[in-house]
Amino acid sequence: MKNNVLTPDTRFLIVGLGLIGGCYAQGLSQQGYEVAAIDPNPESLSFALDKGWIKEGYQAPDEHLSSYDIVILCLYPSLVSDWIRDNKPLLKKGAIITDAAGIKGLFVNEVQELLGKDAEFIGAHPMAGREVSGVQNADVKIFHNANYIVTPTSKNTQKAIEIAKEIGELLGFSTISTLTPEEHDRMISYLSQLTHVIAMALMVCEDNESYARYSGDSFRDLTRIAKINDALWSELFLSNKGPLLESIDLFMKQMEEVKKQILEGNVDALREDMRLAKKRRLLFEKPKKNED
Amino acid sequence: MKNNVLTPDTRFLIVGLGLIGGCYAQGLSQQGYEVAAIDPNPESLSFALDKGWIKEGYQAPDEHLSSYDIVILCLYPSLVSDWIRDNKPLLKKGAIITDAAGIKGLFVNEVQELLGKDAEFIGAHPMAGREVSGVQNADVKIFHNANYIVTPTSKNTQKAIEIAKEIGELLGFSTISTLTPEEHDRMISYLSQLTHVIAMALMVCEDNESYARYSGDSFRDLTRIAKINDALWSELFLSNKGPLLESIDLFMKQMEEVKKQILEGNVDALREDMRLAKKRRLLFEKPKKNED
Repeated sequence: MKNNVLTPDTRFLIVGLGLIGGCYAQGLSQQGYEVAAIDPNPESLSFALDKGWIKEGYQAPDEHLSSYDIVILCLYPSLVSDWIRDNKPLLKKGAIITDAAGIKGLFVNEVQELLGKDAEFIGAHPMAGREVSGVQNADVKIFHNANYIVTPTSKNTQKAIEIAKEIGELLGFSTISTLTPEEHDRMISYLSQLTHVIAMALMVCEDNESYARYSGDSFRDLTRIAKINDALWSELFLSNKGPLLESIDLFMKQMEEVKKQILEGNVDALREDMRLAKKRRLLFEKPKKNED
Repeated sequence: MKNNVLTPDTRFLIVGLGLIGGCYAQGLSQQGYEVAAIDPNPESLSFALDKGWIKEGYQAPDEHLSSYDIVILCLYPSLVSDWIRDNKPLLKKGAIITDAAGIKGLFVNEVQELLGKDAEFIGAHPMAGREVSGVQNADVKIFHNANYIVTPTSKNTQKAIEIAKEIGELLGFSTISTLTPEEHDRMISYLSQLTHVIAMALMVCEDNESYARYSGDSFRDLTRIAKINDALWSELFLSNKGPLLESIDLFMKQMEEVKKQILEGNVDALREDMRLAKKRRLLFEKPKKNED
C-alpha cells in the first residue's frame, strides 16, 4: 500500500538522536533513504555514522537544514515550539515537519501557526519505547509490532498526511491510525500516562524493598514502567494535565467501587466487573508480529 | 542443599489436578517420586496418567488416602477447611498436609486445630501462575524462576517446615522463603491482590474497546492479569478483606498525592517520587533463571 508520495531522492533529517530518533534513522536508512541527524552529543552522531544509519551528523541546526525535505523532531514536547520558532528561516520551502512526541495539544496549533505556508507540520506518535534511552539502545524492531498514530488538524494537506503514514509504513509499524490531536491526547492520558501514574504510585505507596524476594510476575508487570525517565514523564504529565486528571478520576472512581464491593462482600458485582475486564482485555492482545 | 527429610519411598497425593496441581505432579514425578491425584474430572486424571505425571488417579477421596505420606491440597482456599474436616479420618497417621493457596489466614489455624496430633498441616504458596487454567496447561517450568513461600505457625514442627521447603526445592523454585500466615497475607494483599484490583479497575473504568488498536506495551502490561478467573479471585479478595482494603487505601492515598502534584504543577515532587519509584523497582527485577 505504498502511496509513492516519497521519492527515492527524499532526504530526511532527524532532530534529536536518542532512542526514538535512532530507530527512525536506522529504519529509514535501511529502506535506502538518505538520512542525516542533528544532536548536540558528538558520540551519538558518531555511533549512528558508524552504523551507517546517517550520512551526515550536525551538532546544531544551520544552513544545511534547507537541504532536507522531511524533518522529524524527536525532541521533548516542551522544546518543539521553540525549535520551530528558532529554525523556521532555515527550513526548506515546502518541507514537511513531523515529530514523535507523546502529546500533541501542547504545541501542534502553535507550530502550524508559526510555519504558516512556508512548511507544513504533521504530528505523529510512534507508540513504542524501551526503559533504556540513547541511540546506542535504538532498535527499529521495537516499532515492528507497535502502533503509529498520525494526528492531523484541519490545516493539514492530504499530501502531508500521506507522507506521515508512509513513514509509519517504512518503519514497519503494524497499525497506522489517524486521530485529531485532542483525541490523541485524551487516549494517551488513559492508555499511557495513567498507567505510568499507577506504576509509580504502586512503587511509592509502600516501603516495599523487603518484598522484592516475594514478587510474582503480576507485580513486576504492573511496575515495569515505574523505571521511568523523570524529566520526560513529569513533562508529559504536566503538559497533558486536563485529560490526565480526568483519566485519573475515572480510574479512582472505579477503585472506590471495587473497594465498596470488597467491603460489602458483594461477590456478584465483583465477578461481573471481573468478567467485563477479561472480555475487554482480550481485545488488547498484541498484534501479530509482521516480521522476525 | 537437600535436607533428605523425604525418602525415595515418600508417596505424594495431589488433591485438585488443575494448573497448579498439574505442575506439582509433573515436577515431583520427574524427580522420581510416586505421585497420585484426586480430581472429580476423569479427563484431567487421564491426561496426567498419559503424561506419566501420576501413577494413580481417583475421582474422590477414599481409603486410598491412608497410603500417602504427603498430601498437597491444590484447592480453592474456601474448600480447604471442609476438605480436612471431611477426610481427616482417612488420612495416614502422621501425614504431612500442605497446600498451594494464595491466602493463608482464612484456614490455617482452623485446619491445624482440626488435625490435632494425627497429621500436620504446613502452608506453602507457589507464587506462579498462568492466565489459562487446567492440568492441560500445566508446565513446571513456570515455577523455575519464581518464589515459593512456606508459612509455618508456632504449632508446626521443624520436620514439617523442612519438608515443605524441600518440596519447593524439588519443584525448582529459585527463592524459598518463610513468613507467618499473617505476614504472608499482608504481603500478598499488596503484591498480588492489589495489582489484580488495579488491572481490573483499569479495564472497567473506561469503555475502552475502541482504544485497543492504539495500545502500547505499558497498558498491555498493566492489564494482562485482568484476564482474571472471577470465581477464584473474588474469593481471594473477600477472604483477605482486611489486608487488601488496607493496601488499596495506601495506594489510593498515593494516587491522590500524584493527582495533587499534577494539579499544582509540582514538578519537583513528581520527579522525586519518580526517582524513588525507579530506585525501588530496580530491586524487583526477575531472578535469573536457574535452568532452560
